[in-house]
Amino acid sequence: MFDPSQLAALAAILRHGSFERAAFALGVTQSAISQRMRALEEQVGTPLIIRAQPCEATEAGRRLFQHSEELRLLEQDVRRDLGLLGAMAPRATDWPTLRLAVNADSLATWFVPAMASIDQVLFDLVIDDQDHSADWLRRGEVRAAISSMSEPVRGCDCVALGRLRYLATASPAFRARWFADGVVSVETLSDAPALTFNAKDDLQRRWADMAVGHGVTLRSHWLASSTAFVEAALCGMGWGMNPVQLIADALAEGRLEELVPDLPLDVPLYWHVSRSVKRQLAPVTDLVVAHAGKVLLPL
Amino acid sequence: MFDPSQLAALAAILRHGSFERAAFALGVTQSAISQRMRALEEQVGTPLIIRAQPCEATEAGRRLFQHSEELRLLEQDVRRDLGLLGAMAPRATDWPTLRLAVNADSLATWFVPAMASIDQVLFDLVIDDQDHSADWLRRGEVRAAISSMSEPVRGCDCVALGRLRYLATASPAFRARWFADGVVSVETLSDAPALTFNAKDDLQRRWADMAVGHGVTLRSHWLASSTAFVEAALCGMGWGMNPVQLIADALAEGRLEELVPDLPLDVPLYWHVSRSVKRQLAPVTDLVVAHAGKVLLPL
Repeated sequence: MFDPSQLAALAAILRHGSFERAAFALGVTQSAISQRMRALEEQVGTPLIIRAQPCEATEAGRRLFQHSEELRLLEQDVRRDLGLLGAMAPRATDWPTLRLAVNADSLATWFVPAMASIDQVLFDLVIDDQDHSADWLRRGEVRAAISSMSEPVRGCDCVALGRLRYLATASPAFRARWFADGVVSVETLSDAPALTFNAKDDLQRRWADMAVGHGVTLRSHWLASSTAFVEAALCGMGWGMNPVQLIADALAEGRLEELVPDLPLDVPLYWHVSRSVKRQLAPVTDLVVAHAGKVLLPL
Repeated sequence: MFDPSQLAALAAILRHGSFERAAFALGVTQSAISQRMRALEEQVGTPLIIRAQPCEATEAGRRLFQHSEELRLLEQDVRRDLGLLGAMAPRATDWPTLRLAVNADSLATWFVPAMASIDQVLFDLVIDDQDHSADWLRRGEVRAAISSMSEPVRGCDCVALGRLRYLATASPAFRARWFADGVVSVETLSDAPALTFNAKDDLQRRWADMAVGHGVTLRSHWLASSTAFVEAALCGMGWGMNPVQLIADALAEGRLEELVPDLPLDVPLYWHVSRSVKRQLAPVTDLVVAHAGKVLLPL
């Protein structure tokens, strides 16, 4: 068995990025952290941490980090079976941390209430594009992920959550300036500034292909924030694909308009969960699926 | 002189992450992109791009990318001086792209209207912690940055923007559960789940030091989104340092409460701009300073 305090030191270094912050987080001295890491690395016989700013895990370090998180979840499972949860109202210091990959738009539209409904777990979110969040699971860096990918990752199960609906939207002034008479064509779309979340975001390009066929060369602002994306559209900086949940009021009040009425783009979302902790995460899975069902369109 | 179409190919590859997407963005074939990059690398005599997923710049590539952005800004400056801007309403395809580092909370509170007030520029935002955004400028990867650092980066100028005020806040139910009778002490703070943006975010720890002195070991959820941070506080997941601008309504309506009344934490913010494009960015600097002045507290 690995020493739990050594595993906790490893997890804290990786989560906080430095020995100093890890020491602070665990309430021990920095030399205690160093000693624990040295002991753990001697036992494993290989470096676990790349001492950079921030500290990063070696492949072996990543595997042990994963193991330490799973241990916490397994222990919570035992506590639950023994009736020790809830009744004892354990301190937050005993809660396991669950590392998840989630797409930014899920986080902005429905995922926070889902997390909030799950007690006695600390969440550590990795935010990435829905087309790439499953990569984190494949690399073993998270225990579960929300992804647009429908095929299960190796060693993982996959449950459908629903479709997140996007509308190509802009402010009335922006439409008047760049899409005179509402004409959406290869020419107007190539000329009007678009909004793009980041290099992984191809929703604007996909919608443009849908609307006018191939051949559009988008010029774009780049801003990786779901709410800033909506605000940038409201302020007339560009047009972008916004989740309906974030723009319902603005649409109803006429502050945003669809570029082409009734041409939504739906992104399917799936919950992927590692089989090694599937049983422990069953209550989490149930609540995530239930919350998604309230907000997303059925798949 | 470098060939502008070769520089454009380099910039597109770095911005979009792959040769394929760069070709798509520029409306040329992928082999045209490859040829341009080969020609540019032959001319410079060193690799400019690390062909990975996503493609990354070598040091020389980063320098040339910076050069290509500066060229665009200089050209726009000439157009402005010649009276060719505005009057001609140039197509967005002629707009320069301005790469900036901005902290997430500025983006969530005041920076979008500032950007929207600046016409004929495409923004490419790098979002990072206010204590680390200046690093991007130091590495030459952005032309300007919003940072909490008051000393100018080498080769850059620095203007004060104001103070962003944060309040330690949580929902009433959360306070009742974790801070019975409102007692904020080393014990209650060590026990109650906190919210942390990411490993670089030390606002919660700094506030805890201010409130009860050293010795608090925070247990935390990790979620790197300003608005999800507020929503997580509203939903009772944890307490966190939230910018006053994002929580004014929730505070007024009693959906959020301060953990300790009248104990704000103010973060000073500065606009750093590279001197190589200082003149070209003067109108941007003026508008950013003016917008910040409307929302931030004076420094």
